[in-house]
Amino acid sequence: MNPVFDALPTTVFETMSRLARVHGAINLGQGFPDDPGPEDVRERGARALRDGWNQYPPMMGLPALREAVAAHYAHHQGLDLDPETEVMVTSGATEALAGALLALIEPGDEVVLFAPMYDAYLPLVRRAGGVPRIVPLQPPAFRLDEAALAAAFGERTRVVVLNNPLNPSATLFAPDDLDLLARYCQRFDVTALCDEVWEHVVFDGARHRPLMALPGMRERTVKIGSAGKIFSLTGWKVGFVMADARLMRGLAKAHQFLTFTTPPNLQEAVAYGLAKPAPWFAAMRAGYARSRDRLADGLRALGFTVLPAQATWFLNVDIAALGHADDAAFCEALVTRHGVAAIPVSAFYPDASVRGLVRLCFAKDDATLDAALERMRGLP
Amino acid sequence: MNPVFDALPTTVFETMSRLARVHGAINLGQGFPDDPGPEDVRERGARALRDGWNQYPPMMGLPALREAVAAHYAHHQGLDLDPETEVMVTSGATEALAGALLALIEPGDEVVLFAPMYDAYLPLVRRAGGVPRIVPLQPPAFRLDEAALAAAFGERTRVVVLNNPLNPSATLFAPDDLDLLARYCQRFDVTALCDEVWEHVVFDGARHRPLMALPGMRERTVKIGSAGKIFSLTGWKVGFVMADARLMRGLAKAHQFLTFTTPPNLQEAVAYGLAKPAPWFAAMRAGYARSRDRLADGLRALGFTVLPAQATWFLNVDIAALGHADDAAFCEALVTRHGVAAIPVSAFYPDASVRGLVRLCFAKDDATLDAALERMRGLP
Ligand SMILES: CSCCC(=O)C(=O)O
Ligand SMILES: CSCCC(=O)C(=O)O
Repeated sequence: MNPVFDALPTTVFETMSRLARVHGAINLGQGFPDDPGPEDVRERGARALRDGWNQYPPMMGLPALREAVAAHYAHHQGLDLDPETEVMVTSGATEALAGALLALIEPGDEVVLFAPMYDAYLPLVRRAGGVPRIVPLQPPAFRLDEAALAAAFGERTRVVVLNNPLNPSATLFAPDDLDLLARYCQRFDVTALCDEVWEHVVFDGARHRPLMALPGMRERTVKIGSAGKIFSLTGWKVGFVMADARLMRGLAKAHQFLTFTTPPNLQEAVAYGLAKPAPWFAAMRAGYARSRDRLADGLRALGFTVLPAQATWFLNVDIAALGHADDAAFCEALVTRHGVAAIPVSAFYPDASVRGLVRLCFAKDDATLDAALERMRGLP
Repeated sequence: MNPVFDALPTTVFETMSRLARVHGAINLGQGFPDDPGPEDVRERGARALRDGWNQYPPMMGLPALREAVAAHYAHHQGLDLDPETEVMVTSGATEALAGALLALIEPGDEVVLFAPMYDAYLPLVRRAGGVPRIVPLQPPAFRLDEAALAAAFGERTRVVVLNNPLNPSATLFAPDDLDLLARYCQRFDVTALCDEVWEHVVFDGARHRPLMALPGMRERTVKIGSAGKIFSLTGWKVGFVMADARLMRGLAKAHQFLTFTTPPNLQEAVAYGLAKPAPWFAAMRAGYARSRDRLADGLRALGFTVLPAQATWFLNVDIAALGHADDAAFCEALVTRHGVAAIPVSAFYPDASVRGLVRLCFAKDDATLDAALERMRGLP
């Protein structure tokens, strides 16, 4: 057994969802919405499944979806991607990330990662033979810091992994921070692997700025997107990889041997969905912003300190402000005794150094949020 | 860029399918059927997509599918699997294989592989840090040979990869060969990774014998199955992994970080399909056997030497018998000049040592097979 995987615990998301089931808890842990996703997109996928082609699509993805991805990102983010050579479809963003790390890293390469980080990053980097250099970011602003970058980047750095918008902090990196990171990538000739799956779920008029669009970054950025996050269909597992053709060649080989391809009916439905007009995306964001406000206001009314949430389906409460020193213990009590599942933010810090925050998912019906709030009454 | 992936050519299946499109050829290369798959299974998946749950299912797979897998293999192969701890759903057999190799291999471990082999095996073993020890099998019987096993197995062997039924040879390993391999696995304390995706597609009353069922192998075998092959739905990408709970723990971690999960509607439809009664499977096999005979008889009538095909969707013609020394050149001429795509069997031998066979897929409508035969007239 390989020790990288054998030694790992089950992911916190799965563990918490299981605890939620066992304890009949309201699940505000793992990030998935109550919203069933757009009916027309599901209908399109259902029709293709019943009447369409159910054999291997091309390994890079259906041409219609690759063209839709290129058109979508041209329209929404001003990116100029060749659908033939610079877009690839994967079985979810997780596969995209795994494949990219396996393709980009040679054993011994250093990889810069920021904490908090999604719990797949570190084991994937290690299993690929990478040597992680972790830069911890501090709440509440989670800003990049030049001194920390200077300490982390070096001669052996090959890849930096950026999650922007950042889960679980629900923050967008400031323009200055992105500029700083872009400078370091160029100074040290580093490839940026950008997990931008939350790019569309941004609030209060904020705009996501893809690192790939920064001067000098087009040729050294691998960008990952997710239809599951865009369309509130987390089970679909349709992801996209965008990269310069030279990088894409290696990424495609990894994909070829990890899953080879992705169900064609889901690809067809996503191609259809990506062409939705701007108001659809605005309405989707507005809906989640309303849910965010409902949960945040309710929590504040109960006496919780709530951090600002600019993006994602999550907000964080500051339990340290309530005198709690251990987010994991807090979450365990919350799910077992109060019937609400949440995620301890320490699970996103490999050294568990930040223990004063708890993440709650607000992508839920009003009734679900209200019931959770009712259960949390008296907790602070 | 990691050199294991960067140096690779695009898979021969994709390359040939692309050539087939470009040249308007009949595609008997990449293995996918003309059959659209069972209508009730597709309908079930379509309904679940439209009306069902489209968020993350449990990471190990829908309980209903894990139970269906356990019941299916109990019924068809006499295996006794605990659906809770010994069955996992993956995004196709390729992901299952990639995850298993990443989980089982530590850098420096030796891995025994048999040629001909599916073209994903070797790069995946290498990328996982394994040291391949390749045992070439010779046409037409592709038998295992004790001397070759004795030369390949040693102190450092950790894993052996077995594809049975074997693609592209379309053969089943003989009971003696499986017993021999099982003895070697036990003697050297080796885990067998069994790609048995063709287990149901066997002809002429042959029965697939899972290596896992052999004495002493239950605890040291990882078995991989594929809904795409069982139901002629190669685009669905729903695979299964079966292994002892102790092995499964590591395999599950790899899966968790490669794709995490698989679309729930497809899982639900596959769970439904796996419960089909024995006559359904017999009819499926009989249908493909008829197609095999149609293509084989037609090829023989044209003057080709056709190898026996006991399993899979493929048969092989012996082009060496016609005086051709280079299967790749033969296939290139076949697709570009005669309009029929096929796969050179040398692509399955890392040293390309066997160059006298060409693989043709017979999982096609009669009209498609007849048209291909017409185009091949005069070739031998
Ligand atoms: C793959 S389960 C985790 C889902 C998610 O993005 C989250 O909850 O952070
Ligand atoms: C994943 S493409 C290859 C399909 C197949 O099993 C074959 O043609 O051998």
